[in-house]
Amino acid sequence: MGHKGILAVVSGFSGAGKGTLMKALLEHYPDQYALSISATTRSPRAGEEHGREYFFLTRDQFEELIQKEALIEYACYVGNYYGTPRDYVLEQMEKGKDVILEIEIQGALKVKERFPDTLLLFVTPPSGAELERRLRSRGTETQEVIAGRLGRAAEEAAYMDRYEYLLVNDDLEVCMEEMHRLIQAQHHRISGCQELVESIKKELEGYR
Amino acid sequence: MGHKGILAVVSGFSGAGKGTLMKALLEHYPDQYALSISATTRSPRAGEEHGREYFFLTRDQFEELIQKEALIEYACYVGNYYGTPRDYVLEQMEKGKDVILEIEIQGALKVKERFPDTLLLFVTPPSGAELERRLRSRGTETQEVIAGRLGRAAEEAAYMDRYEYLLVNDDLEVCMEEMHRLIQAQHHRISGCQELVESIKKELEGYR
Repeated sequence: MGHKGILAVVSGFSGAGKGTLMKALLEHYPDQYALSISATTRSPRAGEEHGREYFFLTRDQFEELIQKEALIEYACYVGNYYGTPRDYVLEQMEKGKDVILEIEIQGALKVKERFPDTLLLFVTPPSGAELERRLRSRGTETQEVIAGRLGRAAEEAAYMDRYEYLLVNDDLEVCMEEMHRLIQAQHHRISGCQELVESIKKELEGYR
Repeated sequence: MGHKGILAVVSGFSGAGKGTLMKALLEHYPDQYALSISATTRSPRAGEEHGREYFFLTRDQFEELIQKEALIEYACYVGNYYGTPRDYVLEQMEKGKDVILEIEIQGALKVKERFPDTLLLFVTPPSGAELERRLRSRGTETQEVIAGRLGRAAEEAAYMDRYEYLLVNDDLEVCMEEMHRLIQAQHHRISGCQELVESIKKELEGYR
């Protein structure tokens, strides 16, 4: 079967629980997965660490990465750059690790265009009402921020159909296992098994 | 998630162990799967039963099914018709069962054309040499029959890339579980979750 790692992009509404899901997946299967860390020019928030949440770069550093084509995808949000460093992703896949990118929809579609074998996953709460409930229950955000997130979710929902698979995050454990099985199933994709396919074709050629 | 059943087509070389695999899958998960039974105009072999291995029909009966468009696909091999009755497949899927068709490559491609959501699986032994070993070890076939099967496998190998997923049948239990997980993962395909996607879109529309 395919020995090279799978590239999986995970997107979803803010409040869908993507972060917790990724954390659980990497804790349960530390040898199987690698989480790609994005680069950004925005300032670190309290508690964020360079090389853990993000690689925090200056605008010059980021633009150098763009020029060297060292990013798989990048985009500008609210005046700051965000992007996915290429080398780490390719190295981990070469080692056989399945690499997960937790990125926005536009970035996800760009990655898919460049690497057609990318698995596109969208994570959603069971309903819009549940999304609102979760955003409100955090109790840390203003009404305005919550309204902004819901408005953005409404815009993002228009792109759900561009994804290949949908995961409903109702129960964290269940959803994490579903994500794991879904990604592992992709190791059987014919496109990832070309070596074996070619070797069998060649062997059988003698029997024609 | 998708409540309707998945349609999965399983093809593979004669000697790959498809039959044993299907039997094991249905024994382990009798509530999840339904195996479609083909119709044919060829005569039953010793031990074959109408409605178990095949529906054995006369040429007139078969041609009536063709005319009534009651077959998902059909083909003619060595002067006999083989085809997949439509109603049984659709009824089982409607009930939420995942339906498996064990059919030839040409039939598989026709089904995929007609039902693009069909999952195409190809089952192979680990190598061509192992295929030959398995065919010979049965000890029931003549040299000529074995050579014919290997020659046919060589022709079929050319179409392996038209399938979506490859399963290597080395250990029966392992391969059966891989097939199960692969088919179950397809319940998360976005195309099978349109009801949920539309309902979330509609709910969130109010937040724009």
